[in-house]
Amino acid sequence: MFREKIKVLDCTIRDGGLMNNHEFDLHFVRAVYKALSEAGVDYMEIGYKNSKKLFNPKEFGKWKFCDDEDIIKVTEGIESKTKISVMVDVDRVDIDDVKPRKDSPVALIRVATYVKDVDKAIFLANHFDSKGYETAVNIMAISRALDNELTECLQQLEKECKAQVINIVDSFGALYQETTEFLVKKAKNILKTKEVGMHAHNNQQLAFANTIEAIIHDANYVDATVYGLGRAAGNCPLELMLGFLKNPKYDIRPILDLISKEFILLSKKMEWGYVIPYAITGILDEHPRAAIALRNSAKKDDYREFYESLIGEVEE
Amino acid sequence: MFREKIKVLDCTIRDGGLMNNHEFDLHFVRAVYKALSEAGVDYMEIGYKNSKKLFNPKEFGKWKFCDDEDIIKVTEGIESKTKISVMVDVDRVDIDDVKPRKDSPVALIRVATYVKDVDKAIFLANHFDSKGYETAVNIMAISRALDNELTECLQQLEKECKAQVINIVDSFGALYQETTEFLVKKAKNILKTKEVGMHAHNNQQLAFANTIEAIIHDANYVDATVYGLGRAAGNCPLELMLGFLKNPKYDIRPILDLISKEFILLSKKMEWGYVIPYAITGILDEHPRAAIALRNSAKKDDYREFYESLIGEVEE
Repeated sequence: MFREKIKVLDCTIRDGGLMNNHEFDLHFVRAVYKALSEAGVDYMEIGYKNSKKLFNPKEFGKWKFCDDEDIIKVTEGIESKTKISVMVDVDRVDIDDVKPRKDSPVALIRVATYVKDVDKAIFLANHFDSKGYETAVNIMAISRALDNELTECLQQLEKECKAQVINIVDSFGALYQETTEFLVKKAKNILKTKEVGMHAHNNQQLAFANTIEAIIHDANYVDATVYGLGRAAGNCPLELMLGFLKNPKYDIRPILDLISKEFILLSKKMEWGYVIPYAITGILDEHPRAAIALRNSAKKDDYREFYESLIGEVEE
Repeated sequence: MFREKIKVLDCTIRDGGLMNNHEFDLHFVRAVYKALSEAGVDYMEIGYKNSKKLFNPKEFGKWKFCDDEDIIKVTEGIESKTKISVMVDVDRVDIDDVKPRKDSPVALIRVATYVKDVDKAIFLANHFDSKGYETAVNIMAISRALDNELTECLQQLEKECKAQVINIVDSFGALYQETTEFLVKKAKNILKTKEVGMHAHNNQQLAFANTIEAIIHDANYVDATVYGLGRAAGNCPLELMLGFLKNPKYDIRPILDLISKEFILLSKKMEWGYVIPYAITGILDEHPRAAIALRNSAKKDDYREFYESLIGEVEE
């Protein structure tokens, strides 16, 4: 019954790092890596490769930079087939920081871009490809992309880019199934030589559903995170995805253990998941930054006022 | 853009009542009724009509019995177009407790049944129809129904039952979109003269998605609850449903207010929503009773052991 081509990428530490300046300690990151390895998850995305000229390492955790030595401290001594992935943002990476694949613990580099920056993303993906890495391009904020521009972007990726996978990223948690279907079909139609992937946010409790929807329409790469950890509303919960997939190589049990032992405690210290202001920004197809600010203010539960403030911003 | 036929039934107090023996106080129930009325929600299901010969009124809250006088205390003085619904379970209602429609504040009676009890459900629905009520039949635990028995059940409902609406009930939160699509199409195909509705549970964060899926395939009645309140993992969140529906008669704002003022506090005293043991029973297509018991025990966060205990129950 299962589709062997489906690969699961866990981005718990990478997307979750957006909530704590990438400050996860070594014990925690190793616990995640060990559980993912035992669960048979294909990739673990551990953080961003950001230039230290742009961000001060004293102000952020290790996983904003992902030095190879730090990654090796996570993986050493743990038996694993799980490959390591890092993300780079257009205009924030220093390509000279990235060693050739053969000298690095990293297997996959994913380039995150808006539609408008696709030329820069192609340059970066092709550069990392030339260094021997698997590569992917993540098209962020796709719910805001204009259809003609998205078409051109996808055509260019198909023609000019060596990345093996192109991911649809619902940054705002705004997509419903019908639009997910539309976007995946559109991408599959243009990207004849590549795989399509899905990275969903959970503002409207649709991250898992939209990821299933993407799979139904032949996306083979799916992002998920343990207990849904991720920026604001978080992501598609890995435990649900493993419960859904039929490939016998996956085992949900190490993830259940990991949640019991590490994530319940974390959830008492850090807020992510279904919170009404995040649902509101999802419904309105807005970046969650206003909702994140609200949750750090005295008005954190004044939902109606928050909603009014967003729909009041008429732009005409 | 909107489909006028779509009707929203809020069952916050009815399904939520399964979590507190139906003990919601009058202030709370009136607050819900007022907000639903202002939001333009079509129906409010307030509880069960159970026989006092079977259940001792001293051991349960009012909403396990739904006496007309108690309902009137909720609705009086509040301007509203929201109709009142009550649920009856096969074998638990005393039909003589139900006055004719013209003497009652209730507009809709929904009969909950398993496939095997459909004959009893038809008798009850037709009886309440003869007393002047709108009626519906809810087919519970549909994820466990055998296809041939479900076919016969639906054919019988179409031929013999006067209920206007037949609801698909995913009691265990086990359905994925593809099975929801299959069931809704099957029901629509047989129930030529009736509407199809969807009542989803949120064990796998799919209640909202499966309700959208049902709408895509022409279900016109949808159940939802404020902030997803309901047994165990809860239900499709009403606020998300109102954010999704395009009918201008619906207004999300009174619901946002209600959540701020009543539900945040309640969520600190009562547990419902995304909790791993409920996710596990959903994945395994099991009744949540074992998960509810676990959450009231010292082992509440021993997820792996709980999972093993369920998959260990081989039945052959």
